[in-house]
Amino acid sequence: MIPVTLLRIPALSTSLFCRCGASVFQLQCRRTISKKARICDVLKSTHIGSDARVQGWVRSVRPQKDNLFLHVNDGSSLQPLQVVASSHLNTRDLTFGCAVDVTGTLERSPNKKQNVEIHAQHIKVVGECDPVDFPFKIKERHSLEYIRQFPHLRCRTNAFSSLLRIRSEATAAIQSFFRDNGYVHIHTPTITSNDCEGAGELFQVEPAGGKNVSDDPNPHFFSVPAYLTVSGQLQLEVMAGAFSAVYTFGPTFRAENSQSSRHLAEFYMAEAEIAFTESLEDLMKVMENMFKATTEHVLSRCADDVELFHKYIAPGHKDQVDLIMKRKFHVISYTEAIDILNNSTQNFTFSTEWGCDLQTEHEKFLVKHCGNVPVFVVDYPYDLKPFYARDNQDEPRHTAAAVDLLVPGVGELCGGSLREERLELLKGRLARTGLEETYAWYLQLREFGSTPHGGFGMGFERYLQCILGVHNIKDVIPFARFSHSCPL
Amino acid sequence: MIPVTLLRIPALSTSLFCRCGASVFQLQCRRTISKKARICDVLKSTHIGSDARVQGWVRSVRPQKDNLFLHVNDGSSLQPLQVVASSHLNTRDLTFGCAVDVTGTLERSPNKKQNVEIHAQHIKVVGECDPVDFPFKIKERHSLEYIRQFPHLRCRTNAFSSLLRIRSEATAAIQSFFRDNGYVHIHTPTITSNDCEGAGELFQVEPAGGKNVSDDPNPHFFSVPAYLTVSGQLQLEVMAGAFSAVYTFGPTFRAENSQSSRHLAEFYMAEAEIAFTESLEDLMKVMENMFKATTEHVLSRCADDVELFHKYIAPGHKDQVDLIMKRKFHVISYTEAIDILNNSTQNFTFSTEWGCDLQTEHEKFLVKHCGNVPVFVVDYPYDLKPFYARDNQDEPRHTAAAVDLLVPGVGELCGGSLREERLELLKGRLARTGLEETYAWYLQLREFGSTPHGGFGMGFERYLQCILGVHNIKDVIPFARFSHSCPL
Repeated sequence: MIPVTLLRIPALSTSLFCRCGASVFQLQCRRTISKKARICDVLKSTHIGSDARVQGWVRSVRPQKDNLFLHVNDGSSLQPLQVVASSHLNTRDLTFGCAVDVTGTLERSPNKKQNVEIHAQHIKVVGECDPVDFPFKIKERHSLEYIRQFPHLRCRTNAFSSLLRIRSEATAAIQSFFRDNGYVHIHTPTITSNDCEGAGELFQVEPAGGKNVSDDPNPHFFSVPAYLTVSGQLQLEVMAGAFSAVYTFGPTFRAENSQSSRHLAEFYMAEAEIAFTESLEDLMKVMENMFKATTEHVLSRCADDVELFHKYIAPGHKDQVDLIMKRKFHVISYTEAIDILNNSTQNFTFSTEWGCDLQTEHEKFLVKHCGNVPVFVVDYPYDLKPFYARDNQDEPRHTAAAVDLLVPGVGELCGGSLREERLELLKGRLARTGLEETYAWYLQLREFGSTPHGGFGMGFERYLQCILGVHNIKDVIPFARFSHSCPL
Repeated sequence: MIPVTLLRIPALSTSLFCRCGASVFQLQCRRTISKKARICDVLKSTHIGSDARVQGWVRSVRPQKDNLFLHVNDGSSLQPLQVVASSHLNTRDLTFGCAVDVTGTLERSPNKKQNVEIHAQHIKVVGECDPVDFPFKIKERHSLEYIRQFPHLRCRTNAFSSLLRIRSEATAAIQSFFRDNGYVHIHTPTITSNDCEGAGELFQVEPAGGKNVSDDPNPHFFSVPAYLTVSGQLQLEVMAGAFSAVYTFGPTFRAENSQSSRHLAEFYMAEAEIAFTESLEDLMKVMENMFKATTEHVLSRCADDVELFHKYIAPGHKDQVDLIMKRKFHVISYTEAIDILNNSTQNFTFSTEWGCDLQTEHEKFLVKHCGNVPVFVVDYPYDLKPFYARDNQDEPRHTAAAVDLLVPGVGELCGGSLREERLELLKGRLARTGLEETYAWYLQLREFGSTPHGGFGMGFERYLQCILGVHNIKDVIPFARFSHSCPL
């Protein structure tokens, strides 16, 4: 058992409890000491003079002649709580990183930065932390690259704990946005037999060792090859045919052999699908509203945490975010985008001819060209888009009703389209690629009460990169998975 | 293009809009007709006489001599909206299952079951539905088994759409419960290199065709074998060491070759991990509170949908749920459970000796024995539990501080434990199974600011089975995955 230290100074003790023999001390304490409180709540408390108990990790220890000053953090906020105790309470195991259980009295703090502090009667070290072996050092500012080496410990740094609180709030904000607007939350499957866009880059799934199907002539657990989903779109289309508006928010996968700062093998997407939608304008409105509502929520609920990023990790990024929030998002067509790129003086690595896919370098240029605000690019070449994108039936440049949202610093954040609801057009396109039978179920959606509809997906990690100014996508997800890396 | 029918009766039209030539009709309409409303909102509306527009699917068509009565549903509620129109508006393509866009006036309904109805000026069929080919028939009640054959269409039935609305609300309720109680939401990874409990039954993940790593001497995309997660627990333990209280809610996987009514290859789990927790009582309190808060939320927000299940699918189940909600959950020890089983007159298929795992037949018996209320079983044999379960260091019957929650009709719903926070005990146990090196990172959590902690997981589909009385787990998930079955 990790040795625990229990210290108290009888002379200072004003509490009515714990005046008992050592053997029953713990039991007595459990029954009588005040309820544990989260530090974020204590910091807002006005109950000066009341009993208080907090538990958390020590972020700093400053012993002075008479008094000992600790900062204790329990993860509920960036700001730690100041604990003041007699210097007699200082012991060898009270170090940076150790876990403590503190009881005392809530007092007004003379410090201008906080309202209250705890005057401790007892400090119990429940878990030691050797400051020599611990990879994070007190008073040192570690880079995101450095802490990334410790996926099991980096959440104990200020930066990454702020990130995860923001991520948690942003998740809640996205869910609230859809919920408040009448969307039904659908858990689209992780394992799927359709490869959605026929795009490759899929992970395949089979039982480890194949032992579960050894008595079976069929080589596949699911009888058919099964993959990790690249998008819940097709299943959301199923559900939009019953609920009008649906969304999903969960992990999606790409088996890309990439070490880029914008790609992960496992990442989160918020996806929505809306029946009775006849225009890209309607979709763009939802995307812009979702982005702004989520960001507003995060900025107001996680002000301290966001400030850490905007101050220390991406200085100046606050102005960028303010600009995005203030302005209406731009809309340009793909054809206009190509014209802009072709008329620019910049040399691009990739081609900018009509019909070519937009690359990250193009996306970033377009965003800058439009004044560093988000840009919707609409009506992409028909041949660039998957079978389900709605045919605009235009000439001579044949386009589909697809839209991408490009944002400063990141490039593509969202992709969406109107879906081809017209049975004959969809059938024709699938037949040309030999996929008519594979998607027989999808065609049936168009036979039975089909509606004009559309939807989009937003990469959640890229969203976090965009609002926080974080360069590397590996720094905005709790456990990053990419080629050659899957610790824990 | 699916032919659309646009009908109106000029004589009845009281609207100020659409009095325009056919060619600009649609454009004009878009600009001037009243905003679309969700049917659940219309049903509660008191704006009698106002313009109204709804879009949805036809659930019934009753043509009478002068009037046409439709029921239209848009998925926002179980209850459809009654639409009344002149019988002239009836056309061949206005059938059960078709998608319609209805504009008209909101009027008080003479029907006692609803407050309002729409008197339609226009009914536009936007998507036809051939009632002969459509697998669901008007006025027929289809069994859950029957509709399960149509995973892309079953959401259009009353029963399954109710289920999915309940599932969506239950998801939100679980998230609210944790959020309101200060838990940080962590997205634990789907792909992991640890096999958590060493339990086998894992799915392995590699790129399809292996093409992405063909130029690489290492056979694995992630350099190591990678699996689909069976639990986010170990990663949550990482996070509990920074945030005190964390939770995750997402898909988990078992490669079980099972066709049982209680198992899926992909299912959802709500998992929580709480630092500074020293007793199973504290964990049980969270489990019971979560169960009751979530159920209360669902019962109040989805009354109609739940009633459908309690009336038509599991008659009498309402009493069962009421009983669960009213009573405090039972607590018995594993040793008491074995005594109860051994003293019963029932013949069990599986052994009931001390040291054996509890089987479903045992779990169901214990629940009945305790009066059909949920039962916590605590302190399981040490050798039955994974390496992380906290050693109770008791004799002669050696147990670990683990707990399962058994519920009526389902059996095991939750499993949890205190985790072994003592470095030396944990090291010893891992060393005995040769896993010390594999879990070096996990041991480090105990070296740096370790705390007593514990957590649990709840099977979300089993929870839905429990409150709704649904026999087969395949009927409570949007897209069921099990051996030999992965459509869509």
